[in-house]
Amino acid sequence: MKDNKLLNMLLQNPGEYISGEEISRRLGISRTAVWKQINKLRLEGYEFEAVSRKGYRLVHTPDKLEFTAVIEAMKTNSFGRRLKLIDVTTSTQEEMRLLAEQGAPSGSLIIAEEQTSGRGRQGRKWLSPPGKGIWMSLLLRPELPLTCAPQLTLLCAVAVCRAIRAVTGVDAGIKWPNDLLVQGRKVCGILIESVGEDELIRYCIAGIGIDVNLEPEDYPPELLAIATSLKMESGQDCNRAVLIGAVMNELEKLYELYVEQGFGPICHLWEALSITMGKEITVKTARGDIQGIAEGLDPSGALTLISKDGQRINIYSGEVQLGG
Amino acid sequence: MKDNKLLNMLLQNPGEYISGEEISRRLGISRTAVWKQINKLRLEGYEFEAVSRKGYRLVHTPDKLEFTAVIEAMKTNSFGRRLKLIDVTTSTQEEMRLLAEQGAPSGSLIIAEEQTSGRGRQGRKWLSPPGKGIWMSLLLRPELPLTCAPQLTLLCAVAVCRAIRAVTGVDAGIKWPNDLLVQGRKVCGILIESVGEDELIRYCIAGIGIDVNLEPEDYPPELLAIATSLKMESGQDCNRAVLIGAVMNELEKLYELYVEQGFGPICHLWEALSITMGKEITVKTARGDIQGIAEGLDPSGALTLISKDGQRINIYSGEVQLGG
Repeated sequence: MKDNKLLNMLLQNPGEYISGEEISRRLGISRTAVWKQINKLRLEGYEFEAVSRKGYRLVHTPDKLEFTAVIEAMKTNSFGRRLKLIDVTTSTQEEMRLLAEQGAPSGSLIIAEEQTSGRGRQGRKWLSPPGKGIWMSLLLRPELPLTCAPQLTLLCAVAVCRAIRAVTGVDAGIKWPNDLLVQGRKVCGILIESVGEDELIRYCIAGIGIDVNLEPEDYPPELLAIATSLKMESGQDCNRAVLIGAVMNELEKLYELYVEQGFGPICHLWEALSITMGKEITVKTARGDIQGIAEGLDPSGALTLISKDGQRINIYSGEVQLGG
Repeated sequence: MKDNKLLNMLLQNPGEYISGEEISRRLGISRTAVWKQINKLRLEGYEFEAVSRKGYRLVHTPDKLEFTAVIEAMKTNSFGRRLKLIDVTTSTQEEMRLLAEQGAPSGSLIIAEEQTSGRGRQGRKWLSPPGKGIWMSLLLRPELPLTCAPQLTLLCAVAVCRAIRAVTGVDAGIKWPNDLLVQGRKVCGILIESVGEDELIRYCIAGIGIDVNLEPEDYPPELLAIATSLKMESGQDCNRAVLIGAVMNELEKLYELYVEQGFGPICHLWEALSITMGKEITVKTARGDIQGIAEGLDPSGALTLISKDGQRINIYSGEVQLGG
């Protein structure tokens, strides 16, 4: 809740009118000051009904993330506990990278209401309009060899997918390595940036973009065929703070499982949520297209295909497309 | 050669005196201007003998890397071809990281005469006094999965070790993963910083520090027991430009071999240059000390040990010490 007495007075009396005179008296400010504050709140997205001789009534609260609401949604020890909420940034990944180089601790989380240059895989743009999505970056400093980084990429996909399913009931699935799709349309993109020194990870930044409450009109036409939001799929608004909390809870739980038991359990969870298992796929790689039936993950996290001539092929990088 | 007519005149007449009057006449400048130029060159490390009625004689040229000398020592296509020579910097790794983020091409090389905050493995300092070592950072943008980065670390060790042996005859060997030692003393440190996105390498920066012409008095006493220079081992000055060229040549050659044939050939070269193969070693890891006989590298680049009870153990990160 914002530290704004006028707003809190209206929030505590939902649906009721409070006269300008009463507000003025209770807050000890002039009627003009009341009017100025109301207008300022309107610019922030609050909507009021003003009826003469009745007063003001709050009719719409903007869906803005509140620090305490996000923190309260988490049951974690460290993941997300160092939280920075920002209104607008170029990219939460860039923000976090600066903090990481300055020594920010593992578990630090930056969430932005809006990104002006959100980034997706392979330098692509990521649409990040204000107030409707979850655009965030989590810093991890695992004491792990660099060769584990691709497994962390897969772990993140599992965690976010499980959180989305639990909170919204939307039937999201994973496309290798870490896109989340609903009936073929992308609802979440994940980007893990890893910085290593010789054989060790120095830090990883998990960038997570979830299209939560976007409406069809929020998308440019060319994206509507390939992107969707949780609201468009479920028909309901989703509380972003609750979903952020669920993602952090899943991430910390799975990360602890991974550190204790290795990649095996994560691998099984990933395969169970995969949308490509057993299906014919084409992988666009730097060395050309590779076709086959997706069989699963190998112990390193590579995608294993069975080609038409029965060969088992491990894919370490590339873009997966459904169909042969 | 510097673009300095006075200096070139003296360089072209080695050992000979040239009178101030003649210099003044040939360059068309006053005697005072000659004297000022001589003093400026003295500040840059040139030493002159001035004898009355004979004139000036050049007796010492500072060992400063010349751009053309370094370029001419390379036979590469891309490695080192974008060359930036700087007098002093905090760290060539930091300089290169900025250039990398700005889109510098693969093969870009930064060499500094002096580093004020040179870095070694695991945040340790690296002594980098002016003019006596090779302190450089090479940018690579391999289209490889991130899991290959530790193999590039080993490849760099092989390349630098081969170049040092070829140019100086000094019998350097490799301590896993990428330290170069001569009779137990470190003569070169390598640090590969990798930046990855999901499963792919975005770029790697190979930081290479070679103690070339350092004298015992250049080291603080506590380092003399564990560090040495090529000059101290061979008894001779080593031409830094020639050694830089040889390192770039080896790196490009081995990198092409690696891209074509995978890690196999590099692995054999590494094992042949290793100082630990077949010996009893202790590896300090995050999970405690591990002892055993070093057997070689596994296909991923991990160090394989045989423990006392006959178990084969793969080490993915840690500090190797000779002895049980």
